[in-house]
Amino acid sequence: MRAAPPPLAGGTSGAEALRPLLDTVLDALHDGARARGGPLPPGGPEAVAARVAALGAVLPEHGTDPHEALRTLVHAVAEGAADPAHPLCAAHLHTPPLALAVAADLAASALNPSMDSWDQAPAASALEAEVTAALAAEVYPAAGRPDALVTTGGTESNQLALLLARERHGRVRTVVGANAHHSFHRAAWLLGLPEPVTVPTPDGTLDPAALAGALKGLDGPVLVAATAGTTDEGLIDPIPALADVCAAHGAELHVDAAYGGPVLFSRTHRHLLDGLDRARTVTVDLHKLGWQPAAAGLLAVRDAADLNVLGHTADYLNADDDTEAGLPDLLGRSLRTTRRPDVLKTAVTLRALGRAGLGALVDACMERAQDLADLVEKSPGLQLRARPTLTTVLFRPVTAAEPTDGATVAEPTDGATSAEPTDGATSTDEDLAAIRRTLLAEGHAVLGRAGADGRLWLKATLLNPHATPGDLARLITLVEGSTHR
Amino acid sequence: MRAAPPPLAGGTSGAEALRPLLDTVLDALHDGARARGGPLPPGGPEAVAARVAALGAVLPEHGTDPHEALRTLVHAVAEGAADPAHPLCAAHLHTPPLALAVAADLAASALNPSMDSWDQAPAASALEAEVTAALAAEVYPAAGRPDALVTTGGTESNQLALLLARERHGRVRTVVGANAHHSFHRAAWLLGLPEPVTVPTPDGTLDPAALAGALKGLDGPVLVAATAGTTDEGLIDPIPALADVCAAHGAELHVDAAYGGPVLFSRTHRHLLDGLDRARTVTVDLHKLGWQPAAAGLLAVRDAADLNVLGHTADYLNADDDTEAGLPDLLGRSLRTTRRPDVLKTAVTLRALGRAGLGALVDACMERAQDLADLVEKSPGLQLRARPTLTTVLFRPVTAAEPTDGATVAEPTDGATSAEPTDGATSTDEDLAAIRRTLLAEGHAVLGRAGADGRLWLKATLLNPHATPGDLARLITLVEGSTHR
Repeated sequence: MRAAPPPLAGGTSGAEALRPLLDTVLDALHDGARARGGPLPPGGPEAVAARVAALGAVLPEHGTDPHEALRTLVHAVAEGAADPAHPLCAAHLHTPPLALAVAADLAASALNPSMDSWDQAPAASALEAEVTAALAAEVYPAAGRPDALVTTGGTESNQLALLLARERHGRVRTVVGANAHHSFHRAAWLLGLPEPVTVPTPDGTLDPAALAGALKGLDGPVLVAATAGTTDEGLIDPIPALADVCAAHGAELHVDAAYGGPVLFSRTHRHLLDGLDRARTVTVDLHKLGWQPAAAGLLAVRDAADLNVLGHTADYLNADDDTEAGLPDLLGRSLRTTRRPDVLKTAVTLRALGRAGLGALVDACMERAQDLADLVEKSPGLQLRARPTLTTVLFRPVTAAEPTDGATVAEPTDGATSAEPTDGATSTDEDLAAIRRTLLAEGHAVLGRAGADGRLWLKATLLNPHATPGDLARLITLVEGSTHR
Repeated sequence: MRAAPPPLAGGTSGAEALRPLLDTVLDALHDGARARGGPLPPGGPEAVAARVAALGAVLPEHGTDPHEALRTLVHAVAEGAADPAHPLCAAHLHTPPLALAVAADLAASALNPSMDSWDQAPAASALEAEVTAALAAEVYPAAGRPDALVTTGGTESNQLALLLARERHGRVRTVVGANAHHSFHRAAWLLGLPEPVTVPTPDGTLDPAALAGALKGLDGPVLVAATAGTTDEGLIDPIPALADVCAAHGAELHVDAAYGGPVLFSRTHRHLLDGLDRARTVTVDLHKLGWQPAAAGLLAVRDAADLNVLGHTADYLNADDDTEAGLPDLLGRSLRTTRRPDVLKTAVTLRALGRAGLGALVDACMERAQDLADLVEKSPGLQLRARPTLTTVLFRPVTAAEPTDGATVAEPTDGATSAEPTDGATSTDEDLAAIRRTLLAEGHAVLGRAGADGRLWLKATLLNPHATPGDLARLITLVEGSTHR
């Protein structure tokens, strides 16, 4: 006799099938986090890989059972996580998700709507339309018909922005600052467009005069990509002035606000994004300052008509007669076909917290960044790169070996053509990179790195609204301890 | 005094924060499914959109609370779902996910590893490496160094296959059957490649002689894309013969096995995929015949070296000195940057069920398709297109009005250039499209549609291993009832 198939997550009995399995998952998450004990597992890549390899066959001929598999693998991944909910895990734009958003995401998995046709996602597609309209209106409060697409993140949003420009203009040239995200270079390559022109950004932001100089030398259609929240330093390009330069040169403006965009929710800080709505397209990620589990990307467009070029027909999904009969045509809402309803967790978060609640979380992280900058300034052994604009703090030990000759490991931002001074800061940079790796290997802290002013800096990206000044003091102590060894 | 931020999903206290929220979600999933009562909500798109709009502001100034938001929105999406776990929801390659895979997916959201750098995903990235190696070896059992990338689905996998071919050869021409997925046309457009040459497939599969004829007329590099599991009919192109034709003409072969690939797990049916490993790249989706919630796409490559062209450096993620010091370089594993660990649910499923367990699920769905074909053949009012190869069954009422003149709504597969006979089957096709829409609008069944043999057919795609012969009989009764109205 054949065994019954394992239970499904949907239908009227799915919830009861899920309940005991979720208990196993929650226990494994808890026990795994306890076993880890810190922000990441100690031992570095080899030790972690060895522990995963020791779990046994990935694809056995005969399975174990659901509870064993969940317990074993969830425990392993939790024990071996770099957990952004730990306040000493602060390297990247790698957010600690809110429990309510994660709980909502379970429903997306259980129901498994696919957003490429109405008859796979009736209510989910209606909800997505409402949420994208509301978020587009946050970015473009004065536009007549803004819209937004849900993406897998800033990389896809930036790629879509270039694609839309290509479809408007043909072989468009992208102009970016050296401070821009690497995804612009990759998108141009993917789309068969010319390599972007990179304008040096020695001060970390795109200078309007430098942009004007670059535009002067270019013929043909141009898309300028500015950044509101740079990956390295959390800086915001001077958007109104850049928009003026673009207007004067007949160039279009895109703003990559993957990081900074959610600052719109903060009454206190939203002025930082003045002029954002002068961009034709804007990238925003809610899996950064929006506390969503990945992915929760958006590309907002000032005019929904700009999206028409993405229209695409596949008769099994959006035959003309079905569309005429009133079935919504969703295939132009993404370059993907099957598509998870990432919008559900976002919808729950917006409704539960409101603009004010999200703004308060933004404000909390902004304050933590100022707190960390204060601590660095008070530490005689540390140098602060600058007071933070968003939630990124760059600092470095000043007690490390002073500049000597030799090959530098200071890193210009990807694609940079700037001739930033490197002034031989070799061994300091090497020491600094080693400090970061040591903290990782010992499982003590996850800090990032960034090149600025020709040197390498330690980078803390503060996205955890629960972090306390005491946590930040521990971080400082750890860095100082690593420096003096 | 400022309110404490809402709890996070991670850390040692995340599990306890999640528990009550998940109870709310499970209750809402259960109640929503009960309120729906059938495979999808009645009333059609307008009624569903109106119910979603009536829920109130998407982005209020002040939020409600997490439990209210979860209860309201999860209930709405569950009540308004086209639920693939319902046996009468059988239109698309839209799988009912296994409860154990959905439970595992919760851990991915809670821990939120991002797969673009080791220091955001230490154990998750190690696990992904193991799972992709194991699955690549299923596709390429005799290859020395196969590999696989995790994607958002077949659309991205096919796009990557074209991109890899472009990077090997430059301006490569894609040759597809008229039965191929629409994503090849979209990928060529995206990548700036020539529009694919489409070979007519009047019998539903790509004929080797027809392919040879098409290749004879082409100069320059060519990538042939065959299909193992067509979207319209679930057919498998004759892969060994097509591989021979490609070899004779110096063309490369890609196989889109998004649908059929997991048949490899079935001892009974895996012979259907003989020759699959002659393809240079193979697309497989585990969110179809693998019962994973979206997304669980893969692109398998025979030789891992083919992936080197995706290598990409961004110093904040994979600086050279970090890579030299032993930190894995993950950025070339995807075109995305932030990336959810979709592999975790797959790993849990493989371990829990094993190859045999997954094969049994494949076999069950294959049997259901034969059962449905039997029922159609026994129904005097219905015509069967053909005995099913995989799990797709095409059929149509023969009692509908017979062919008359006028504009046809029969649909060639997207991009088809074939001159399939349409023989004026107008009103039958219109009736058939209307039957499908009526079943949708009444909330009674979700059936698909497909053009074949110059006519429109109802399509049932059977992916639910819990479906019974009784369920299939109800489906037949519903169609017959709609026909005779």
